[in-house]
Amino acid sequence: MGTDVSTYDDRTSAETRTLLDFVTHTDASDVPAEVLHESTRCLLDHVGLAIAGAEEPAARIAREQCQMLGGQPQATVLGTPHRLRVTDAALVNGIACHALDFDDTHVPTILHPTTPLYSAGTALAELRGTRGVDLLAAHALGYELSARASNALYPEHYDAGWHMTGTTGALASATVAIRLLGLSGETATHCLSIAATQAAGHREQFGTMTKPFHAGHAATSGVWAGLLAAGGFTGAPDPLQGRRGMFAVMSSASSPADLVDGLGERWQIFDNGVKPYACGVVIHPVIDAVRDLAVRRGLAADQIDTIRVRVHPLVRELTGKTDPRTGLEGKFSVTFACAIALLDGRATEAEFSDEAVVREDVRALMARMEVVPDAEVPHTQAGATAVTADGKTVETWVDHARGTPGNRLTDDDLREKFHSLVDDVLGQDRAKELADAVFALQETGDVEGLLALTKP
Amino acid sequence: MGTDVSTYDDRTSAETRTLLDFVTHTDASDVPAEVLHESTRCLLDHVGLAIAGAEEPAARIAREQCQMLGGQPQATVLGTPHRLRVTDAALVNGIACHALDFDDTHVPTILHPTTPLYSAGTALAELRGTRGVDLLAAHALGYELSARASNALYPEHYDAGWHMTGTTGALASATVAIRLLGLSGETATHCLSIAATQAAGHREQFGTMTKPFHAGHAATSGVWAGLLAAGGFTGAPDPLQGRRGMFAVMSSASSPADLVDGLGERWQIFDNGVKPYACGVVIHPVIDAVRDLAVRRGLAADQIDTIRVRVHPLVRELTGKTDPRTGLEGKFSVTFACAIALLDGRATEAEFSDEAVVREDVRALMARMEVVPDAEVPHTQAGATAVTADGKTVETWVDHARGTPGNRLTDDDLREKFHSLVDDVLGQDRAKELADAVFALQETGDVEGLLALTKP
Repeated sequence: MGTDVSTYDDRTSAETRTLLDFVTHTDASDVPAEVLHESTRCLLDHVGLAIAGAEEPAARIAREQCQMLGGQPQATVLGTPHRLRVTDAALVNGIACHALDFDDTHVPTILHPTTPLYSAGTALAELRGTRGVDLLAAHALGYELSARASNALYPEHYDAGWHMTGTTGALASATVAIRLLGLSGETATHCLSIAATQAAGHREQFGTMTKPFHAGHAATSGVWAGLLAAGGFTGAPDPLQGRRGMFAVMSSASSPADLVDGLGERWQIFDNGVKPYACGVVIHPVIDAVRDLAVRRGLAADQIDTIRVRVHPLVRELTGKTDPRTGLEGKFSVTFACAIALLDGRATEAEFSDEAVVREDVRALMARMEVVPDAEVPHTQAGATAVTADGKTVETWVDHARGTPGNRLTDDDLREKFHSLVDDVLGQDRAKELADAVFALQETGDVEGLLALTKP
Repeated sequence: MGTDVSTYDDRTSAETRTLLDFVTHTDASDVPAEVLHESTRCLLDHVGLAIAGAEEPAARIAREQCQMLGGQPQATVLGTPHRLRVTDAALVNGIACHALDFDDTHVPTILHPTTPLYSAGTALAELRGTRGVDLLAAHALGYELSARASNALYPEHYDAGWHMTGTTGALASATVAIRLLGLSGETATHCLSIAATQAAGHREQFGTMTKPFHAGHAATSGVWAGLLAAGGFTGAPDPLQGRRGMFAVMSSASSPADLVDGLGERWQIFDNGVKPYACGVVIHPVIDAVRDLAVRRGLAADQIDTIRVRVHPLVRELTGKTDPRTGLEGKFSVTFACAIALLDGRATEAEFSDEAVVREDVRALMARMEVVPDAEVPHTQAGATAVTADGKTVETWVDHARGTPGNRLTDDDLREKFHSLVDDVLGQDRAKELADAVFALQETGDVEGLLALTKP
């Protein structure tokens, strides 16, 4: 990397070539410090989700099948004592990290980039003995390429029914493979090509184990693409923009200029959103609004007579359950999510429990809540109006939900989320040690040591 | 199987359910004998192509990467001494069998069904110790499901740029997995679902190693789908016909009635075409027409003054090279293909050689040939008019190219193709022994023994 001049097939479109050149030739030391810090924060979130998701049924079943198939123990299944071959580790870690629907989001396009990026990334880093900073840079540059491809395809591609994480997610992991296997020029193009043609995943699968499978499939597709290209396998020279390439085949419209506009100046990772609440992003603004009644306005639940929330119409359409029977159903109940957030101050995986949905104080608060859909409320915003027992009216309004680019979580917020995911598995002390190791990774460089700490 | 009553999710559309029920509940003994014979013929063709393709660069590179990744030695890589885990064997055999562009075709939709069917099939049969007749029945029923899905999607899906073999090919291998792993009802639906959402492959990749990769990817996708579903993994209940399922997402129009019309009466396998010539199917009719001048009309090349051929316009568009420099380029030269077929009586892989394209007798005959595109000639037909040295005119016309459903190859023709593919690797005697073993498979049941004979 650095000053190499790569050669490309002259049939590779200019935008694709420019973007490939950027992601292959930007040295880790040239990635801005604040970008690498974002990639570090994404790694913390990723590791927490991998550990919390490792024993989810989808991840466990996939792991068991991989063990039956066998392979070299090349890479860690995070949060377990198991090692699998790199392609399998990428698959299983990808499934685990998306299984709770709690991983981060490229907000403009609903791509969940970090799951394929780091699921491919940690596996290949172990195979290759990659330094920490190079893993972080691979994440940042893979974020860049896949988010830009998503921008070029959004919204027609998503509206047609494609699950972005399964499709452009394969380009994300391919970019990581390009970086960590040291591919460039035509070989990097072949890698992108082999990944692009595997892009897959229908939104019909939402609500089943196959949704997180898409994320794992995207991760392993990029790893395969990298290994095959490194071995001499060839793909089409213009996999994204060619006449029958990914953009033309998988979207009724695309804007290739998005691949390069502002490249190197405006990094896509700053459009990343990290979920503070373990439920669909659509109800995050209203959870914030209600939670603020307690956190910022100092109201306790027993001081409140009624709460009226104003939300985008999609909120009631997607999360309108009024009598949730399980913690999972609670994620589809806006009144439950708001009530638990106000009462407990949080809405992490632990709060969406089978016990919480039948708690008396929760049910009582839910009964005093009214949901008002309003088409004029943007889907990123929400409001809450409480009338107190002594007749006062208290109002809150959320312009940017917590965790979105306009209202980013602090590093401490991220640590809090991490502990909520990991303490039950590793204990609080080890969890802190692991979080510290993530924030120190750029300095220590020690990927293997960090991953070893994820073992229960 | 047999009389079991399977339960389905009530959200599974009627056509999908009926077709799934047919492929899961038809006992091997209830598959008509002539259908099983077709599946036997397909197996012979498949085994020949796997052996001939085993050392093609695409297959070799993929195999080497699989060996680096490791795994249980569960299944044979045909034509080699190697064994790989089932998912890898399906991948590598699939790549090998499609690498020469010489595998069979569901003529109405240009799906190449047998490659994913038997690439998944032999691997899973070895894992499970399947009897021969059950492997043949799995092929026939997988052919049925995938060809019907292709009919439902064709032509819009193909015209949009999808490589049918990569997309509905995944449903083919999933059906084989359903049969050989003994899945039914909701579990079979999950398998179909996990495969459908992996359907992938852009036509942009034609002309590169990634084209045969699509066939291998389809094969391994179905194996993964079967293993995961057998392990308890869930997918959407209506993967093909659901609002955001495969048909809606991957085609601007589809006809679900094709899934069931005439089911059990009209078997799709009778629409199968087997290629007698090792080149694109578009020039097969004209090769037949010119070859017939020698074979049926008794003309030797030196008796012929000029040959004028009438062809569909696509023939010159796709295969218009007049000065081919390599055997590969010869596949894209209609005049070369016709000349070699008339002179040597065949146009198998051996005839498309670097030596043949520069042979003096070939070049002399090519120079005496005129290609006349005619929009009124159907793409399945062609004609040739020879003027002899002594001034006579001899005409031939081909209504159905050899190998297509209207002009099927005999079992002896298939054996001849098989020997042309295999003799150089195994020697003629072993090749004959292997072909005999294929035709005896239904009786002997011995899949392992047959596959062992493919080892050089």
